[in-house]
Amino acid sequence: MHSFDNGPETLVDQILEALLATAPLARLDIGSGGRVLMRDDWSPQSGKVALISGGGAGHEPAHAGFVGHGMLTAAVIGDLFASPSVSAIDEAIGAICGDAGCLLIVKNYTGDRLNFGLAAERARERGLEVEIVLVGDDVALPGAAQPRGIAGTVLVHKIAGFHAERGESLAEVARAAREAAARMRTIGLALSAARLPGRPVRESEPALGLGIHNEAGARSVAPTSAAQAVALVLDALAVNGGQQRWIVLLNDLGGCSPQERALLTSEVLDQLGLARIARLVGAAPLMSALDMHGFSLTLLDSTPALIEALEAPVRVPAWPGVITPHAAQTRTAARSTPDRQPLGRRNAGREALIRAVAERLIESRDELDRLDAHSGDGDAGSTFAAGATALLQALDAGTLPSGEDAALWRAVAALLEARMGGSSGVLLSILLTAGAARLAAGGDWLEALETGVERMRWHGGAAPNDRTLLDALIPALHALNEGGGLDAAAQAARHGADATASMQARAGRAAQVPEAAQRGHVDPGAEAIARVFESLVSQQSGTRP
Amino acid sequence: MHSFDNGPETLVDQILEALLATAPLARLDIGSGGRVLMRDDWSPQSGKVALISGGGAGHEPAHAGFVGHGMLTAAVIGDLFASPSVSAIDEAIGAICGDAGCLLIVKNYTGDRLNFGLAAERARERGLEVEIVLVGDDVALPGAAQPRGIAGTVLVHKIAGFHAERGESLAEVARAAREAAARMRTIGLALSAARLPGRPVRESEPALGLGIHNEAGARSVAPTSAAQAVALVLDALAVNGGQQRWIVLLNDLGGCSPQERALLTSEVLDQLGLARIARLVGAAPLMSALDMHGFSLTLLDSTPALIEALEAPVRVPAWPGVITPHAAQTRTAARSTPDRQPLGRRNAGREALIRAVAERLIESRDELDRLDAHSGDGDAGSTFAAGATALLQALDAGTLPSGEDAALWRAVAALLEARMGGSSGVLLSILLTAGAARLAAGGDWLEALETGVERMRWHGGAAPNDRTLLDALIPALHALNEGGGLDAAAQAARHGADATASMQARAGRAAQVPEAAQRGHVDPGAEAIARVFESLVSQQSGTRP
Repeated sequence: MHSFDNGPETLVDQILEALLATAPLARLDIGSGGRVLMRDDWSPQSGKVALISGGGAGHEPAHAGFVGHGMLTAAVIGDLFASPSVSAIDEAIGAICGDAGCLLIVKNYTGDRLNFGLAAERARERGLEVEIVLVGDDVALPGAAQPRGIAGTVLVHKIAGFHAERGESLAEVARAAREAAARMRTIGLALSAARLPGRPVRESEPALGLGIHNEAGARSVAPTSAAQAVALVLDALAVNGGQQRWIVLLNDLGGCSPQERALLTSEVLDQLGLARIARLVGAAPLMSALDMHGFSLTLLDSTPALIEALEAPVRVPAWPGVITPHAAQTRTAARSTPDRQPLGRRNAGREALIRAVAERLIESRDELDRLDAHSGDGDAGSTFAAGATALLQALDAGTLPSGEDAALWRAVAALLEARMGGSSGVLLSILLTAGAARLAAGGDWLEALETGVERMRWHGGAAPNDRTLLDALIPALHALNEGGGLDAAAQAARHGADATASMQARAGRAAQVPEAAQRGHVDPGAEAIARVFESLVSQQSGTRP
Repeated sequence: MHSFDNGPETLVDQILEALLATAPLARLDIGSGGRVLMRDDWSPQSGKVALISGGGAGHEPAHAGFVGHGMLTAAVIGDLFASPSVSAIDEAIGAICGDAGCLLIVKNYTGDRLNFGLAAERARERGLEVEIVLVGDDVALPGAAQPRGIAGTVLVHKIAGFHAERGESLAEVARAAREAAARMRTIGLALSAARLPGRPVRESEPALGLGIHNEAGARSVAPTSAAQAVALVLDALAVNGGQQRWIVLLNDLGGCSPQERALLTSEVLDQLGLARIARLVGAAPLMSALDMHGFSLTLLDSTPALIEALEAPVRVPAWPGVITPHAAQTRTAARSTPDRQPLGRRNAGREALIRAVAERLIESRDELDRLDAHSGDGDAGSTFAAGATALLQALDAGTLPSGEDAALWRAVAALLEARMGGSSGVLLSILLTAGAARLAAGGDWLEALETGVERMRWHGGAAPNDRTLLDALIPALHALNEGGGLDAAAQAARHGADATASMQARAGRAAQVPEAAQRGHVDPGAEAIARVFESLVSQQSGTRP
């Protein structure tokens, strides 16, 4: 299976069903059984010119996606890549055309020309006023006697729709549509041809000037970037160095990703230059060729009247609107972080404690890395050691405000976020940042730790017994809270860390590792916390553990 | 080359450049160099809650495509599939958050949780009011402690944006966003994983519950149709038989064609049933995974308040709007074709002429087919013979109004269009239909032929000397016009047909065939016309040619 597909038999009808269920359209039931979708608010007695387009299916959203107030009155849809029957077009004209007459907008393919043409002759023979506008915007084959109609047709729909909605006569609407069609040129470039439902995938080379029915390209190309692809298309469109400004239509032939559409837009804006682009339509799929991986670019010589016609609001399922490209705007952020504070007091006792903890963590690097190899990527020790090294460097440089409370926590939080790396650095930074706020609000260190742990739990999503550093930290805080002092806290942390050897990870990376691989091994984060408390006890008592 | 791509280094910045040039957004210049896009009309003094979202790039249009009036205030964008830095988020909050506070809408991934979380703690520590809503709508892994945030996040953007725009407090906006997030569930299905720019294509199997960063799916699946794919997703979403109505989001993960989006829409509407779907968003790419060929479906338990919030108008680049699906409407065409006329008079002499012409064409089938093999698909003779057979059958049945003028031409035109096939049948039908109109308006047969030829030329696009049947027909009409009678017309047609052997085709299928293959062979259409005139002469003179 290569696509989301229910087979070729039901494809076209299902596409139209989706549209009928989601848009203000009605299916016109005609004797011949053909497919006609029309505005559900249309009356042939409206006094306005009816606009009918259509052709083979497989070009969605064209054409039915452009039916509605301000664009087409109806679309007549054939089978995949096959013109609708004369009878279907004929019956659609008969049901839709009123006294104001009807304009048929037809892409220039023999099947469409002849079938729409005969239907028009029949309608005229019955006394209806019918005009045809042929669109042949494809410049892939220079000098072609009958250039094909491709994506530019959608602009003709929009322009004719504007004039018809204003109540202009059939002759006026047809003239506006023909003038627009004569002012545009389009070419496409595709990396691969469309996959036809129910047919084997056809290998195909990138080509310039592919047809929208998988017709062979005018020539093979081999762009190695989006930039080159756009340059090839602009070259084929013979963009000159003059002053002409264009209305540009960037059409996704069906297989481009959102990112590719954005890249192609960026390249078109850059390479054509904002000064030459009066308006932009797209990038969007407007006239697709199933999932053809490619795009087409249409240049319409811009006039104020054309811009007015294209910008008028419509109520149709698929018109993407008109953009006026402009230079990127930049705002400069007012620096909201406070100005650099004076360093603040220092405290030699606290600095000695911090140094002891940092050195202990650096000594523990390899052991913690080995523990982490059972449940993570084996770098927990290196991560803690990196944070500890940053602390030692700050101590050596004398840049830690160790005699302040909130300022110290804030400074350590910033160091750990910037230098420690990994989730642990951010989590500890969250703890310390939230704790700093508590300290600044008048809390003591224990309250700050508790606030910090609460915020760390909220952001990290881990609970006790999830095999994280919380399983050492929370028991330690509990012991402190009960007045047990550092010794009791260190014992609680050690006990908690040891217990992680029998826990199943439920948060962080270790949650993706099988339980058996972790069992019997202590969580490295909890182990680090236990060692932090042990080193605090040792330092306080003047001995090394 | 597998995609329109300029390499991974510039991808994200170029995507944002396209957006900045086409939407009312501004880039926020921040000290850390991170990527922040914001509404260009935003003031922190607006008294409204600021909404900030973001995450890794590669999910376009999320998130920057949803920045604007009524949705997000700003988006902070990381590298491809990588969370933005704490500093970038921190600086964005600092520049954007005013007295009304700021809500961070965060998809539930460790990197995003922690980086947005720490930035929020820092902002709070500076005295700003900041709340976080975590979105974890992915139900791919049942019972997951930390379900991932995927496409449903976009609905949270819209709902929070509505409440913020109304001037509600931070607590109220956050509550509305959290309630919506708690009421939704999403799962995705993809046929193939995303291609990462600059990395080799990874072969992948279709899977249910893929992550939007190419995380492995919850399980492999092998849908053989769009119908099965949608059924698998609905099954995984545990859609029950109850009465709950949903707001449904159908998200293209980036690689679906317009036709696939329509098919999937049709299947979702059919399989869920219109009665269960309060509103539909999409099908559209909203939270893509580069070009991942797949879709996700989000079900949000519907309430009137949620519908109001989702339907409120916004001015953002990529919100597709909300659809109320409905039963398809059908209109029955008032039959505009005239009621069946009484047959009209018949004329034995004319019937004998028609029969002679028809028999001559049937006899000529193989010869004309052989001529056509030089320039077409070798069926011109069969085509003319099919039309002739239909005429003989009508004569035998006595159903041709051979004694009337316009009615006879109209009847033959209808027969040829319906039974002859190919372009020739339609072209001759155009000639006869336009001619019938001329006859009805009082013209004679020669005038009718001239009008018909003129219309046939207009619709077919062929000119004299283009190697078509016109090269026999026009000289014949010229001879008749000069009063030369049928003999002179037949000689002129023969002379014109013979001359096509040295002409180059410029219209129709033969235009695609090399000149050398055609040279020396008469055009089969012109030959058929010559034989028609010859048979008329023979019949008139009572002899067979």
